[in-house]
Amino acid sequence: MRVAMLSLHTSPMQQPGSGDAGGMNVYIQNLSFALGALGHEVHMITRTAEESHSLQVGEGVWMHEVQIAANRDLEKEELPQIIDAAVLAVSKQMQGLKFDIVHAHYWLSGMTGLQLANLWSVPLAVSMHTSAAAKEAESGIAEPGNRKVAEEHLLRTCSRIIANTPVEARQLERFYDVDSKKLDVVLPGVNHRVFHPDQDKVRRPLGDDDLHLVYAGRMQRLKGAHLLLEALGIARRTQPSLRITASLFGSTSGSDDYDLKSLVNELDLGDVVRFYDPLEPKKLALVFANADIVAVPSLSETFGLVAAEAQACGTPVLANAVGGLAYAVNDGKSGWLMSEPDPEIWAAKIIELAQNPEMVTSAGHGALEHSGSFTWERAAVETLASYRLSQSEFGSSQ
Amino acid sequence: MRVAMLSLHTSPMQQPGSGDAGGMNVYIQNLSFALGALGHEVHMITRTAEESHSLQVGEGVWMHEVQIAANRDLEKEELPQIIDAAVLAVSKQMQGLKFDIVHAHYWLSGMTGLQLANLWSVPLAVSMHTSAAAKEAESGIAEPGNRKVAEEHLLRTCSRIIANTPVEARQLERFYDVDSKKLDVVLPGVNHRVFHPDQDKVRRPLGDDDLHLVYAGRMQRLKGAHLLLEALGIARRTQPSLRITASLFGSTSGSDDYDLKSLVNELDLGDVVRFYDPLEPKKLALVFANADIVAVPSLSETFGLVAAEAQACGTPVLANAVGGLAYAVNDGKSGWLMSEPDPEIWAAKIIELAQNPEMVTSAGHGALEHSGSFTWERAAVETLASYRLSQSEFGSSQ
Repeated sequence: MRVAMLSLHTSPMQQPGSGDAGGMNVYIQNLSFALGALGHEVHMITRTAEESHSLQVGEGVWMHEVQIAANRDLEKEELPQIIDAAVLAVSKQMQGLKFDIVHAHYWLSGMTGLQLANLWSVPLAVSMHTSAAAKEAESGIAEPGNRKVAEEHLLRTCSRIIANTPVEARQLERFYDVDSKKLDVVLPGVNHRVFHPDQDKVRRPLGDDDLHLVYAGRMQRLKGAHLLLEALGIARRTQPSLRITASLFGSTSGSDDYDLKSLVNELDLGDVVRFYDPLEPKKLALVFANADIVAVPSLSETFGLVAAEAQACGTPVLANAVGGLAYAVNDGKSGWLMSEPDPEIWAAKIIELAQNPEMVTSAGHGALEHSGSFTWERAAVETLASYRLSQSEFGSSQ
Repeated sequence: MRVAMLSLHTSPMQQPGSGDAGGMNVYIQNLSFALGALGHEVHMITRTAEESHSLQVGEGVWMHEVQIAANRDLEKEELPQIIDAAVLAVSKQMQGLKFDIVHAHYWLSGMTGLQLANLWSVPLAVSMHTSAAAKEAESGIAEPGNRKVAEEHLLRTCSRIIANTPVEARQLERFYDVDSKKLDVVLPGVNHRVFHPDQDKVRRPLGDDDLHLVYAGRMQRLKGAHLLLEALGIARRTQPSLRITASLFGSTSGSDDYDLKSLVNELDLGDVVRFYDPLEPKKLALVFANADIVAVPSLSETFGLVAAEAQACGTPVLANAVGGLAYAVNDGKSGWLMSEPDPEIWAAKIIELAQNPEMVTSAGHGALEHSGSFTWERAAVETLASYRLSQSEFGSSQ
């Protein structure tokens, strides 16, 4: 198959964490390379303010940067105004290539993709990644009205919708009244070349003969780091003889109403808890592999890639049974899913694990095995199944 | 990790179907390349009667052909006599390489691996593929006594056993009294570059407006092709208006007591059934992708790779709920598992599918999606989990 992979919002080759690039870029880039490795031809298409150019970036994978609105950076809010210009510029640069499908990511590419798919008489598959309605429901802040109207039109008109997670799929059904027959879920993979268990041994800053937990993520209430700290406080009070330590990696929120360092002082955990800046993937893998347990105390999580990455390092995950984490962790085998985000419940489990190190070792092996299902090749094969459904639906609607 | 992958019996680079090479070679070769792609270093080691030599065959993968018993081909029966010579020759050729683990395939490599692992002070993981006791139980023909004694010793002494399928694991537990805690199962993957749905359309020899079933496998009673033919006979008698056709690919047994061509005549199916020679993988993928259903009527099957390959071509599988097929097929989603190898039950399902083509189409998409879990990357990650268990068990027994 020859796939036009539209990502006008940000370049899939941009590193996550820089600018607006994030998990979406990781997803598009890895999916494209995995499709290429299976013998397909993928053309990633993104916007540039510089000169248009195209280059091959991997086996069967091309990157096309298309000049739209030359010589100036656009604000996020201006992007909808360039959809028509984008259709013209992309169709010109792709001239001569006969695609089998357009796969558009995020609503802006979706709107452009609708017109391109029409022009080329091919089906359109859409991955939303985030949607206005879901964002509104989570943050309470209204997105521009035209975005939600456009998304509704897009989701009604496209041949097929590919969600990243079951949570995203349920949100689209609920907020956009999407026909569930049109929806597929393709869970992301893990980069097993980076996240693997065979890492150097490192000395732990707080000593080696403890139960050592690691947290990695933004320090926001929704990510639940406070839950972990409260549980550690309870565990220390009820079992003072057990030595349990924790390292927290991530940027602090800086806001006064979520001050984890004060919480550590209140709970008198200063000697067993350390805070660190966020780490790049390779260093994070080293930290995960050297931890006993990676805690993912999020109160909500669409997938929980960090849980999959921790397991790929052979480290079990302690998490709440919420959202995508229920899929990412195999409860009792590759980690433990707590029924409620309750510090008492978390403390009881942490004490049990500190007292039974063999449970941790065994779950570590289970974690590595379980992470074997999170491959990008699997994601690519599942995406192909969705492309074929797009084609048969497109064919029957012509 | 640096892995010594021992395969003295046959070269993993040999094509399946030639000589003694078979599914075991496919497994070792694909596993080695997938481990290499994950950043590990794999040294496949095999025997040659020619000059010893080593060469890199892929990313992180080397092939070492070691001269043992120079200048003559050995009979299968003579191989046990060369174990000591093999240990010497291999350890000499590998001089300077520090391995983390030995992974030996088949009992001959296992016996050599025991000595090499001792010499190098590293753990030994063993994959049996087939065992004397399982072979005896299936065929009723006794294997040489020393083989079973050697296998018992090997399975008791090695750090870890990696079975290819749950069926193989249950056989080792039953016939060798293997501790199930020592046993892992790593299901094989499918080569998705060969087995994929995007194949040329081919004209069917018996017309295009029928329900077309394909069978691929040896024509032996255990493979159950007679069951498929009997079911087709019943379907035609009870629903003469339905047009159902079948193509059977595979070498005929040649034995008088399993004559499928006579059965076709008896059942008066001459106009809807065709026999063909076995096909190489690429052509088989073409045939699978152009079939409506791939029938795998085996009465027993350790895994049923053909079922996984068919699904990877987007074609649903009709099979008995026996052995590994219960894992390879997702009943009702990616194909259908019959509760008994009963031609009446098979005929009823085939009639239902001929009358409801949308069931077949939908299962085709389910088949492709399900086949996404059968990747060699997943197999490699699971194998690594087993290697790590080998290491921790080896460490605690030192």
